[in-house]
Amino acid sequence: MRLALRLAARGIGHTSPNPMVGAVVVRGGQVVGKGYHRKAGTPHAEIHALEDAGDQAQSATLYVTLEPCNHHGRTPPCTEAIVRSGVRRVVVGCSDPNPRVIGGGIEYLRSQGIRVDEGILEEKCFRLNEPFIKHVTTGLPLVIAKMAASLDGKIATHLGDSRWISNERSRRFVHKLRHSTDAILVGIGTVVADNPNLTTRITGRKGNNPLRIILDTHLRTPVDSLVVSDTKESQTIIATGPKSYKKRREALESQGVEVLPLPLVRGRVSLPELLKNLGRREITSLLVEGGAEVHGGFFYDNLVDKVYLFFAPKIIGGNRAVPMVGGAGVARVAEALVLRDLTMRRLGDDIMIEGYMKDSALFKTISTRKDSAGTSL
Amino acid sequence: MRLALRLAARGIGHTSPNPMVGAVVVRGGQVVGKGYHRKAGTPHAEIHALEDAGDQAQSATLYVTLEPCNHHGRTPPCTEAIVRSGVRRVVVGCSDPNPRVIGGGIEYLRSQGIRVDEGILEEKCFRLNEPFIKHVTTGLPLVIAKMAASLDGKIATHLGDSRWISNERSRRFVHKLRHSTDAILVGIGTVVADNPNLTTRITGRKGNNPLRIILDTHLRTPVDSLVVSDTKESQTIIATGPKSYKKRREALESQGVEVLPLPLVRGRVSLPELLKNLGRREITSLLVEGGAEVHGGFFYDNLVDKVYLFFAPKIIGGNRAVPMVGGAGVARVAEALVLRDLTMRRLGDDIMIEGYMKDSALFKTISTRKDSAGTSL
Repeated sequence: MRLALRLAARGIGHTSPNPMVGAVVVRGGQVVGKGYHRKAGTPHAEIHALEDAGDQAQSATLYVTLEPCNHHGRTPPCTEAIVRSGVRRVVVGCSDPNPRVIGGGIEYLRSQGIRVDEGILEEKCFRLNEPFIKHVTTGLPLVIAKMAASLDGKIATHLGDSRWISNERSRRFVHKLRHSTDAILVGIGTVVADNPNLTTRITGRKGNNPLRIILDTHLRTPVDSLVVSDTKESQTIIATGPKSYKKRREALESQGVEVLPLPLVRGRVSLPELLKNLGRREITSLLVEGGAEVHGGFFYDNLVDKVYLFFAPKIIGGNRAVPMVGGAGVARVAEALVLRDLTMRRLGDDIMIEGYMKDSALFKTISTRKDSAGTSL
Repeated sequence: MRLALRLAARGIGHTSPNPMVGAVVVRGGQVVGKGYHRKAGTPHAEIHALEDAGDQAQSATLYVTLEPCNHHGRTPPCTEAIVRSGVRRVVVGCSDPNPRVIGGGIEYLRSQGIRVDEGILEEKCFRLNEPFIKHVTTGLPLVIAKMAASLDGKIATHLGDSRWISNERSRRFVHKLRHSTDAILVGIGTVVADNPNLTTRITGRKGNNPLRIILDTHLRTPVDSLVVSDTKESQTIIATGPKSYKKRREALESQGVEVLPLPLVRGRVSLPELLKNLGRREITSLLVEGGAEVHGGFFYDNLVDKVYLFFAPKIIGGNRAVPMVGGAGVARVAEALVLRDLTMRRLGDDIMIEGYMKDSALFKTISTRKDSAGTSL
């Protein structure tokens, strides 16, 4: 199963909106077939592994990180191919969280006389596909808030200077995050202040460029900003309010940018509406890179599933320096938003903290599975 | 030496202004004597260990965490007792940083034909006595900044609510810190808002109460606040400006509180003058517990040696919530205060980060020793 997980991870950045899946065929203690899902619309991991095994699949065991599909999607059901292959036993990492699928694949295999064991390395198999799980269970993308701050929680000085707070290793990690997410979002403030191009730069190979989303209530994005002028490598959507701004809109659209009007809530673009729209486009993950007001919007609406915090060993200080999360903030400590399952990691001198928002849709899905599975997921 | 270090640590909270020192006498692979320094003015660790060993000290090896003293202080020089004991070899953790002592003890022992090895577990022996080292080399106390914040760097909400951000384990750890420091400092803002009594509460045994210092430029400390009214267990000094406030001063002094007038710098009590004053009183360590403006004062004056940061897995958010370090803050990221040698630790769900300010007097002392010793201190 560990090998299957490693194989699955090869699909990172390419399988969306499908999950990453890996499969291994083992016979007589020998690996006789390997496969992983490479891209949506192409064969699933099980099919690759069974083809790789050929006749050797007969009476073998198939390890697969995710429950095999039992329905006709863009490809025929894997369960039928498994039965045909002559495999005697199937070991499943985690059951499919897709409400259309749950239990179906495993049930079908058992009905055909194949022994099925499930829940092996379940947590790892589950965590591998958080975007898929969030999207398939809610129709919305996984929302990941990313922030780079000083140890005292400042993302910029009182003059707005923010380059560079985190070190090169942290910044490289962020590019890996971008590579693995479907879309990236920043506010108009960040576009005006930093003019980022929001593409993925990974040394040695071509990164996957996420769709760029700009939150821009009053359609102020400059036509000559990089997210507008540089659309060769990646697309841009500007999420704006319902007001028309005809001229500016035409100027932006003529550059190949999509302007997406959305309803306002308290004078700002409705984030729930934006997420619904992205979900319908099969965007399964959204990396929110800030700034402070944008993060505030996502946090206070309880829309963040996961955070990646990069802390540099520095003190910036100052009552007017830019905090990690702006806006009004909670009134009482008892109302603070709570994180769970934190993991820490050193990236050179920087500290990276990864965690889940306790009240997020994703964490609730995980908890429910924990309870129902009775395992320590 | 590890045993000697453990013995030394038994003196925690009681040896100031002396260092904590442990000593072990070993003969034929057997521990024949143990000792540690219990309290300033009483015999040193070596004396206890040699007495414990008695005749067995003859031809034995003495392990001691700190270079034995070679001068008459409150007790006679240990070097002479070591020579008299018949010990053949002395293993020293770290040389004495006291400018009056450096190398003297080791030189004397060698001149008497005793073999001396030094630098064994040097870093641990050194770190054990940071307050002593800072005080003996600069005449000033070690300044430790302690903060408890949400993960986004807020020590209180915009309404000022701060109870409780950190969990019970973190708060228990803070009481251990208090127990091991000579003095504790808060600003008048904290006294007015929280009315803390700043004593040490440790389960199961009596904690050592540090001297309480209140930074109070305009002598606003209420006479009925706990730091004034509750002086049975610990003393209080109110550091104020040069203006007299005769009536308020008399009211406070009649409660047994010391009012200490100090010069102002930019309208606030001069922190360097305060530290000099405390150093002269043989206060070797000062725990600065905040709030934000007080921390700002110490950080921007580059007076902090060491930090203990407690992060709770929470997001408070808000542009007007209270940051960890207030005041103006640095203008550019390049001017941020830099930390070194960070260590992280989980305290339940909380994360504790311990680190040193790169430009602090203590860190410079450590670095100089690193260079001169050529070891990986």
